[in-house]
Amino acid sequence: MERFAETTRQTYEGWEEFYRKPVDEKLDFFRKDGRLFDVIFAQQFDRRFLDELCRLADKIRLLAKTKSGALLLSRLLPHKRAMLYFVQPSTRTFLSFQNACYLLGLRVSESRGTSTSSEVKGESPEDTIRTFASYVDLIVCRHPEAGFAEKTAWVLNQTERPVPVLNGGSGPDQHPTQALLDIYTLEREFQATGGLDGKRIAMVGDLKRGRTVRSLSYLMKNYRGVSLTFVSPEVFRMKDDIKQFLRKHGIPFTETDDFESVLPHVDAIYMTRIQNEYASDPRNETETYPDFHFRREHLARISPHCVLMHPLPRRYEIEVAVDKDPRAAYWRQERNGMWIRAALIAHIFRAEEEILAEFA
Amino acid sequence: MERFAETTRQTYEGWEEFYRKPVDEKLDFFRKDGRLFDVIFAQQFDRRFLDELCRLADKIRLLAKTKSGALLLSRLLPHKRAMLYFVQPSTRTFLSFQNACYLLGLRVSESRGTSTSSEVKGESPEDTIRTFASYVDLIVCRHPEAGFAEKTAWVLNQTERPVPVLNGGSGPDQHPTQALLDIYTLEREFQATGGLDGKRIAMVGDLKRGRTVRSLSYLMKNYRGVSLTFVSPEVFRMKDDIKQFLRKHGIPFTETDDFESVLPHVDAIYMTRIQNEYASDPRNETETYPDFHFRREHLARISPHCVLMHPLPRRYEIEVAVDKDPRAAYWRQERNGMWIRAALIAHIFRAEEEILAEFA
Amino acid sequence: MERFAETTRQTYEGWEEFYRKPVDEKLDFFRKDGRLFDVIFAQQFDRRFLDELCRLADKIRLLAKTKSGALLLSRLLPHKRAMLYFVQPSTRTFLSFQNACYLLGLRVSESRGTSTSSEVKGESPEDTIRTFASYVDLIVCRHPEAGFAEKTAWVLNQTERPVPVLNGGSGPDQHPTQALLDIYTLEREFQATGGLDGKRIAMVGDLKRGRTVRSLSYLMKNYRGVSLTFVSPEVFRMKDDIKQFLRKHGIPFTETDDFESVLPHVDAIYMTRIQNEYASDPRNETETYPDFHFRREHLARISPHCVLMHPLPRRYEIEVAVDKDPRAAYWRQERNGMWIRAALIAHIFRAEEEILAEFA
Repeated sequence: MERFAETTRQTYEGWEEFYRKPVDEKLDFFRKDGRLFDVIFAQQFDRRFLDELCRLADKIRLLAKTKSGALLLSRLLPHKRAMLYFVQPSTRTFLSFQNACYLLGLRVSESRGTSTSSEVKGESPEDTIRTFASYVDLIVCRHPEAGFAEKTAWVLNQTERPVPVLNGGSGPDQHPTQALLDIYTLEREFQATGGLDGKRIAMVGDLKRGRTVRSLSYLMKNYRGVSLTFVSPEVFRMKDDIKQFLRKHGIPFTETDDFESVLPHVDAIYMTRIQNEYASDPRNETETYPDFHFRREHLARISPHCVLMHPLPRRYEIEVAVDKDPRAAYWRQERNGMWIRAALIAHIFRAEEEILAEFA
Repeated sequence: MERFAETTRQTYEGWEEFYRKPVDEKLDFFRKDGRLFDVIFAQQFDRRFLDELCRLADKIRLLAKTKSGALLLSRLLPHKRAMLYFVQPSTRTFLSFQNACYLLGLRVSESRGTSTSSEVKGESPEDTIRTFASYVDLIVCRHPEAGFAEKTAWVLNQTERPVPVLNGGSGPDQHPTQALLDIYTLEREFQATGGLDGKRIAMVGDLKRGRTVRSLSYLMKNYRGVSLTFVSPEVFRMKDDIKQFLRKHGIPFTETDDFESVLPHVDAIYMTRIQNEYASDPRNETETYPDFHFRREHLARISPHCVLMHPLPRRYEIEVAVDKDPRAAYWRQERNGMWIRAALIAHIFRAEEEILAEFA
Repeated sequence: MERFAETTRQTYEGWEEFYRKPVDEKLDFFRKDGRLFDVIFAQQFDRRFLDELCRLADKIRLLAKTKSGALLLSRLLPHKRAMLYFVQPSTRTFLSFQNACYLLGLRVSESRGTSTSSEVKGESPEDTIRTFASYVDLIVCRHPEAGFAEKTAWVLNQTERPVPVLNGGSGPDQHPTQALLDIYTLEREFQATGGLDGKRIAMVGDLKRGRTVRSLSYLMKNYRGVSLTFVSPEVFRMKDDIKQFLRKHGIPFTETDDFESVLPHVDAIYMTRIQNEYASDPRNETETYPDFHFRREHLARISPHCVLMHPLPRRYEIEVAVDKDPRAAYWRQERNGMWIRAALIAHIFRAEEEILAEFA
């Protein structure tokens, strides 16, 4: 776009160099006072953090069940204000973040799309973000461009008044809070069977481009004895970077295009869309790959304790008739997004002690 | 649209059969624990309910006049969150619901139009609604499609976590909360003259398509001794279904196209737009029917206690100069929408006792 | 537009006559009980009011730094509801008003653009505004049409239930709360050097059309010993009306197109965009006037206490590398918009005594 050409002179020195560094070398930059400040990459989460966050989400969920508990939650952060900056369409991530804020008493501003923004007057994206930071205490952003949330946090951390940035999905790769809700769902659903450690998980669909299955695969290094089965058409196989990562961390995996054969042998099945949303026209995608759909008749073939997940929205990947089976966990998984995001915000603003104190 | 063709496989079994049932047979389905749960049809309201709701709205209105009363109201439901899902443009219904929620302390999320929604990724409308229900405690929806709110409530009532659905206007026929505010306005304006029982009401304009006058006519069966006068051009006469209903319930009515002759003989005049909004292009409607407009000079011809109503927005049906006359009740009527909707939400969440206790 | 032609019959008598009066004769109309009710023109502010408002903004800013102070603020106006009616794109004004409301506990509804509004059904803008007033206690409006906010306030003041109207920018001329934040910034930045009185201020850029520099020039009559330097290309010189006003009030000013020569000799430099946003296509403006841009190398040439301001958004008028210099006040200026607007709303609703009492 011409606008970007126009604003190239307004560059931030040092960004390109920072951006090129390996993720591991950047993690400290997004911490403050010994804890998470910005949440940009799934790589920022270790096992201790994941366990603590799941425990916190459990407590928030329990408190929210009663009026007195809900009031307690809403009095934790009424002095904080959040900005939801969602340039890309999103229902689930937006609403779960907004309602997570509401749960904790934060007031919320939003900007969806760029049409109401000053960008129409030629403002740079960095200036727009600094403007948001002028008025609020927390920015959640979702953007089609890879590295956008990271740049946002990088810019703000150099100003007089940095505010935490949470990555609500940035380009094709990173969506760290989706990974959090997936982990929380697996831990909750496996509560009676010893948690996520030692479980066999199948990931099904477009593994090549699906950022949820990619992030989740990375996080498996935090769990002991997990094994993965990648189920996809040949053209949508998991990329080599993830497979190298798994080999390096000693996480066993297999690959197959035979969905039905996998069903009886796993503890969780993570279905994903085979989609085309990063292409210019979704109508181009006419192939729906019915061999990778979970249908009513498959319920008889999976284990009685199997957990059926999907990041939603779904198209045909799971038949509606499956929803009523107790093993269908995807609607609970969706709602978990609100609980775990509330836990994350409570953590960022150091409200967890007040929450845990209720259960002491 | 192609999208709908694509998703037809994702059907909910039993809906078609349910939808075809007569309204009277479906009412129980939308009740829970002996009281209203979903509000879909005006037929769900009986006289006792209408009287109680009007009384509750009165109390809410009184409390809201003072800071202490307003604070009391705002502490009733701060633990609840609402979703306003408005696919159709709406100013009044949206804002009055939103501010009714604010009055009672609810936090509000909104989705207007479908552009920011996951429907662009091929999600079914039912899944979108279930997603809303994952994060909130109440859904208000407005939709151009007949039966949409009903289907929404029907789907949710079969899930683990149903939340109440309020119909904020669904297709050409049902808009039950508009009927509530009209009843509340009539009762309030007739307070000094014994209430709505026994009054003569003229309905003017497009009676054929106007859903407000249709719903209001249905509700007249709850009142004693009311008589109706339908005033419209020949082409916009009240449809036979309503006239049969009135005959069945012994409610006298007359029909005429002579607006001026009716003026002196009625206790209330309900003006409506003669509009074309369900047609493809509103510009096609060049006929404005000036013989059915209420002008300044008509004020001298109506009774000193006559109540002049309009659901708004208006175009030319009532001259601006009429607004200052004390009998012009339409701006109060508009504001009543907020009070009666707040009363409805308070009722749904069983907060009425706390409100009434303030006046004990 | 045809719509306006259609609704001309729905006129409000007396408006045209009122609108033509000189501003000075209209000020009383927008006051109530001896204080500001509607905020339409920068001419409504006198020195005493400006001083009090700056002091109030200071207190609000201090309180907001702690949780207990923030809670105190949020309990001032939780019984009030605001409507932000922004027909024109705006990021800063919108967000600062919204977060100012949040700071004081108000609940906020918004309407951005006209697409979701009833105007599509042919409603007059006056009726739309009356509708907002039915549900809320405060209306902030921003509109491309000159006089819109004034008309809005004029219409409401004749109804049973007027609510205060704050002008968030109306046409090419008036943007009174921007002037407030500029004054507040100058007073804050000059705190160590005796405040705004006696200072030399350069205004740079498009002085002909820029409403911020025009409003700020008007307000200078409230300060003693201020002198102005207008720096612009020949085609964008300050208009005669302002120059006559300054001469009448004995405020010295000079004009030049030599930006660099001015730098060492002023206490504040107010940069503005040279823009084309009121023209039909912003792409037409290819001239960027680099001689009127503030670049890194200029920092060495300005006084150590010089205050560098910009209403933002910027394009190239100030190089990003300048941001880190402590004299770059524009990001603080932006945030001041939230504090001063919160002060204004607190003033309108008479909450200032509760705030000041905290510091007694």
